[in-house]
Amino acid sequence: MSIHVVVIGAVAVGPKSASRFKRLMPEARVTMVDRSGRISYGGCGIPFFVSGDISRVEELQSTPYGTLRDAAYFKKAKGVDVLTRTEATRIDRKTKTVTVTDMASGRESSLAYDKLVIATGSSPFIPPIPGVTLEGISPATNLDEAEAIKDALAKGQVNNAVVVGGGFIGLEMAVALADMWGIPTTVVELKENILPGFLSPALARMAARDLGDHGVTVLTGESVQRFEGENGHVKEVVTDKRTIPADLVVMAVGTRPNTQLAEAAGLALGERNLILVDEYMRTSDPDIYAGGDCVAIRNQVTGKPFWLPLGSQANRQGRVIGTNLAGGSARFPGAVGSWGVKLFEESAAGAGITLEGALAAGFDAELVQVQQVDRAHYYPEHDMMSLEAVIDKASGRVLGVQGVCPNGDSLVSRINAVSPLIAMRGSVEDLGNLEVVYSPPFSSAMDVINVLGNVAENTLKGRSRTISATEFRSMWDERDAKTHCFLDARAQADAAPYCAAFGDEWLNIPQDQMKDRVAEIPGDKPIIVICNTGLRAYEAQRVLDELGFTDHRTVAGGLVSLNRMGLGILPKK
Amino acid sequence: MSIHVVVIGAVAVGPKSASRFKRLMPEARVTMVDRSGRISYGGCGIPFFVSGDISRVEELQSTPYGTLRDAAYFKKAKGVDVLTRTEATRIDRKTKTVTVTDMASGRESSLAYDKLVIATGSSPFIPPIPGVTLEGISPATNLDEAEAIKDALAKGQVNNAVVVGGGFIGLEMAVALADMWGIPTTVVELKENILPGFLSPALARMAARDLGDHGVTVLTGESVQRFEGENGHVKEVVTDKRTIPADLVVMAVGTRPNTQLAEAAGLALGERNLILVDEYMRTSDPDIYAGGDCVAIRNQVTGKPFWLPLGSQANRQGRVIGTNLAGGSARFPGAVGSWGVKLFEESAAGAGITLEGALAAGFDAELVQVQQVDRAHYYPEHDMMSLEAVIDKASGRVLGVQGVCPNGDSLVSRINAVSPLIAMRGSVEDLGNLEVVYSPPFSSAMDVINVLGNVAENTLKGRSRTISATEFRSMWDERDAKTHCFLDARAQADAAPYCAAFGDEWLNIPQDQMKDRVAEIPGDKPIIVICNTGLRAYEAQRVLDELGFTDHRTVAGGLVSLNRMGLGILPKK
Repeated sequence: MSIHVVVIGAVAVGPKSASRFKRLMPEARVTMVDRSGRISYGGCGIPFFVSGDISRVEELQSTPYGTLRDAAYFKKAKGVDVLTRTEATRIDRKTKTVTVTDMASGRESSLAYDKLVIATGSSPFIPPIPGVTLEGISPATNLDEAEAIKDALAKGQVNNAVVVGGGFIGLEMAVALADMWGIPTTVVELKENILPGFLSPALARMAARDLGDHGVTVLTGESVQRFEGENGHVKEVVTDKRTIPADLVVMAVGTRPNTQLAEAAGLALGERNLILVDEYMRTSDPDIYAGGDCVAIRNQVTGKPFWLPLGSQANRQGRVIGTNLAGGSARFPGAVGSWGVKLFEESAAGAGITLEGALAAGFDAELVQVQQVDRAHYYPEHDMMSLEAVIDKASGRVLGVQGVCPNGDSLVSRINAVSPLIAMRGSVEDLGNLEVVYSPPFSSAMDVINVLGNVAENTLKGRSRTISATEFRSMWDERDAKTHCFLDARAQADAAPYCAAFGDEWLNIPQDQMKDRVAEIPGDKPIIVICNTGLRAYEAQRVLDELGFTDHRTVAGGLVSLNRMGLGILPKK
Repeated sequence: MSIHVVVIGAVAVGPKSASRFKRLMPEARVTMVDRSGRISYGGCGIPFFVSGDISRVEELQSTPYGTLRDAAYFKKAKGVDVLTRTEATRIDRKTKTVTVTDMASGRESSLAYDKLVIATGSSPFIPPIPGVTLEGISPATNLDEAEAIKDALAKGQVNNAVVVGGGFIGLEMAVALADMWGIPTTVVELKENILPGFLSPALARMAARDLGDHGVTVLTGESVQRFEGENGHVKEVVTDKRTIPADLVVMAVGTRPNTQLAEAAGLALGERNLILVDEYMRTSDPDIYAGGDCVAIRNQVTGKPFWLPLGSQANRQGRVIGTNLAGGSARFPGAVGSWGVKLFEESAAGAGITLEGALAAGFDAELVQVQQVDRAHYYPEHDMMSLEAVIDKASGRVLGVQGVCPNGDSLVSRINAVSPLIAMRGSVEDLGNLEVVYSPPFSSAMDVINVLGNVAENTLKGRSRTISATEFRSMWDERDAKTHCFLDARAQADAAPYCAAFGDEWLNIPQDQMKDRVAEIPGDKPIIVICNTGLRAYEAQRVLDELGFTDHRTVAGGLVSLNRMGLGILPKK
C-alpha cells in the first residue's frame, strides 16, 4: 500500500510526524507545505539567539550535527517533499484534497491526500492598541522577527526596551535584552503578577525580585494604552500609570491557535477554537490528524481539554501521529502541564495547576510552601529552593507543584519527579514518600519534595496552621496597633539582629525553651510564630498546642520566604 | 493515653520516628538508646568530611541551623530521652521489656515498653583477609573512623591509599582521597565492573574512565589476598594480580544488617537476615516497628522484599513509624531503588534494576542505550548524557534506567522522572511520552528521556538492531579478518578523520546519500553502521532495510559511547 500524506505546517509536529511516518513506511509519499521559507526550527530558542548565546539563527534550524533542516534536507535525508512559501487555503474533506497557493506566483493547485496532518501552530496575538503598527514593535516568535530584533540591537539602535507581557517568552526576551545587551528593559504585565496562571503571587514575587536585581523593571497590574512614535518608529509606551521610553517593543501577550482552516473544513473545535483530537491525535475526521499548538489535549489534572503550546508536546504528538499514519495505534496520554523558565540567578518551574487555577476548576484547594536547600545542608554547594504544592483539601490529592530556585536543574529535578504523581492522582502521603535520588551532592536525606508532602499533610490535618509571608508583612507593618505577638522561635544568636532592631516588638523564645519560658508568652492576643524557613516555627506550634495556646499561626516559608520576595523587614545597614 | 516508646538505635530511623511521634503525642514518653556517644548524624556525608568539603565532623551531626543533635538537644527540643553508650542486649516480647547495658559502667537495667522501634542499622562487613586488623585499615561508616582517616591525611601520614570495594562509599572515598588530598588511590573491586549491581558494564566503564582521568586507578575483577604491614601498620595490599603500596586502606566491601537482637527475639526475618515488615513498617510483632538499614522493604520492580540501606529511606520510614506509633495508619510503599553518586567530572545515577538484575529476577530483558545532550543542542551549555533503559521484552515494561553525565543534577532530573513510571509498571510507550519540564536551558524538545523510550520501542519492534560499543570494539580489533563492513553514516566532514586514518577499512556514506551510492555497499558481509550517537545510524538502518539489505546492525551510542568508555579507535596525535 503506497499512500500519500499531506502535512500542513513544517515547524515541529509536521516534520516530526512526516519523518517518523517515512521511517515506518518508506514506500509512501509525503508532501509537507508551509507558508514560510524557513521550516523545522526551534522557536523556543529565539530568546537565546537574541541574547547572543546562539550566534547564528540557522543554529535553531539545524540538526545537532550542523545540517540545515531545509526543504532539500527533508527531501534527501527523510524522503519528504516540502513546498515552502506555500499556503494551504482550503481542505475539501469530500474529495480529500487540499488547495494550496504558491505565495510567490499566486498560482493555486490542489493536493490529493489519503491522510492529512494539520500542524498549523499558533500565531502571536497582537492586541489592537493604538500605535501598535509602528516600526520597532514586534513579536519574537519567528526567525525573521528574531533576526530583525537582533540586528537593531547589534547596530546600537536600541537604548530602551519594553516587553509587553510577563509570560515565558516575555521574560526570556527581557533577560536576553538586559543580560547580554545591557539594555534598560521594562516588562509590563496586565495581571497582578508575572507568569500569571503558572506561579502563585509569592513565587512570582521572588522571580520578579530576581529580574529587578538585574536591570529589568517589572510593572504588574498595568495596561498599555498606546504607543507613541517619531518618524514612524516607536518612541514611548504609554500605560495607565506612566510613560516609558522605548525604541524596541516586544509584544509577548500570548499566541492564538491557527485553526481557521480546520474550522472552515468543519472539524470539531473546542474552547479557544482549538482542534479537538482523540488520544490517537485524530480529529473528528478519521483521515485527518492534528497536533501541536493548534490542538487541545487532555489535562491530566482536570480531565478536560486544555492548551499546552510547547515544542516538546509538539514533538511527542508528532511521533504519535507518524506512528498512526503508518497504521499503528500509538496513544498520547495528555499532560499535567509542566514548564520551566530560566531568569538571571533564579529559575522557575512547575507542573499541574496553581491555586487560582484549582479554585477556578472547582477544587476546594489549599496552597502550602516550604523553603529548604536543594542538597544535604552540610554539603558546601547548595541553593535555597522555594517550593509550593496545591492540594485538594477533601482528597489530599496533589494538583500542582511550583518552585523558584537558583539551581534550575535541581528544581526541574523535583518538578519532574512530581509530574507523574500528579498525573496518577497521587496524594500528599505519596508526595511525602516520593522516591528521589539520594546522595548528599544531589538531595537531602529528608528531601525538600518529601518535606513539602509532609507539610501539606500536617496542614490538611490542622496541625500546621500558617499565614503567608505577605500576610505577615501586612501585620508587621500594622504592628503599632499591637494586635499580634510576633514570636521568633530561633536560637538567640539567629534572632539577635531582629531583637536589636525591634526591641520588645520582637519576642525571641527558642523553640526548645518554650516550655520553660511559657510565662513570657502573652495569652491575650494572636501569636505569629516565625523562624528562618518555617520548620522550627512548626515545632514551636506543636509545643504551643501542648501548652494550651489556641490562637497561633506560623509564617509559611519564614524569613527566607520574606527575604526572597524582597519583603525583608530588617533595616538595611 | 500516655505510652512509653523505646527506640533502639539513634542515627536516622530512631531520631526521626521518635521526633515525629512526640510531635503527634507530646504527652507520651520516648526513650532512645544507642551504643555510640554520637547520635543522629548524616553518615552519607562522611566522604565529604574526609575530602575537606565539610570542615568539622560535627556538621554532620547538626541541624541546618548549626545546633548539635546530641542527647541534650533531643531532650530539650524534642522531649526525647536518650541513653548514649548504652547497648540493648535483649528484647523480651512477653514482658515487653528491653534489657540495656550502660557500656561505661557495665550496669544492666531494663526498659519496659508499650511500643518498640528497632532501628539498629547496619555495620560494615570486614572480610577475614589476612592482615585486615593492621593499623591503617578501616571502614568509613561512622564519625570516629572518619575522624581517624582525616587526621592521618592532615598529618601527612598517607602517601598511597587503597579502597577495597567499588560501590558507592568506596568510590566517594576514592574521590575524596584523590581529589582534595592528591593521594594516589587505587580501587580494588572483585566484580568485573565498579558499582556492580547498579551500572551496566558500559556505563561502569564510563564512570571508571572518569576516575582514571583523575588519579584513581580502578582494578576490577581483582581480589585482595592479604595485607602486609610494618610495625603493625599496613604497608601493602596484595591482590591476586599485584602488590600495591598503601598506608591507608578503606574497607568498603559492603555492610550487613544488625538484626541479631531481632532474631533472638524471634521476629520474622527474610533473606540476608533482614527484618520483615509490613507496609506500616510493623514487624511480625504488632507492638514492634522496624526501619532503615535493618529491614527489607518491598521492591516495586520485582514485588519482592529487598534491601535499600539509604539515609533517605530511613528518614521516610522513620516518619511512617512515628505516625503509626501515635495511632496513625501511614504506609510505606516500598521503593524502586534509586541512587546517585558524584565522581570527578561525571556523575552516575539510576533507578530500578540492571539488565543483570532483571535476568536474575527471571525477566526476559533487554538493554537499550542512547547518547544525547541534556539540553537543547543549540543551547551553549550542555553535557552529553549516556542513558540506558532495561526493558522487559514481552510486556515492554521499563524495569530500570541508569545513566552517566557530567551534569549530575540534570541526570538525576531524568532518573527522578522515570522512578514513578517504573513503580507503576509503565511501558516504553509511556517513557516515550513522559512529560518532563521543557525549556531550552533544561531539556530538548525531544528530550533524551523520550528518545530513550522511542529507541526502546524501536528495538522491541525489531526496527532498531544494535551491537554494543564494546562488541564493536572487538570486531574492529579483528578487522584484518575483513568479516564485517564498517559503514560510517555521518556527513563527510564528520567522518573525514576516520577515513584519513583507516582508508578503505572505513566506508563513509552519509545517511542521505545511501540510496544514490547503494552500489558501494557490499552485499556479501554483515554491515556495522556507526555514527556519533546512533541516531543517524538508525536512520541509515531504515534505509538499508528499504534497500533490501538484511544483515546490518548499528553501534548503540556510536562513537560517543566508545569515546566515553575510553575505547575510542582514532589514533592519538
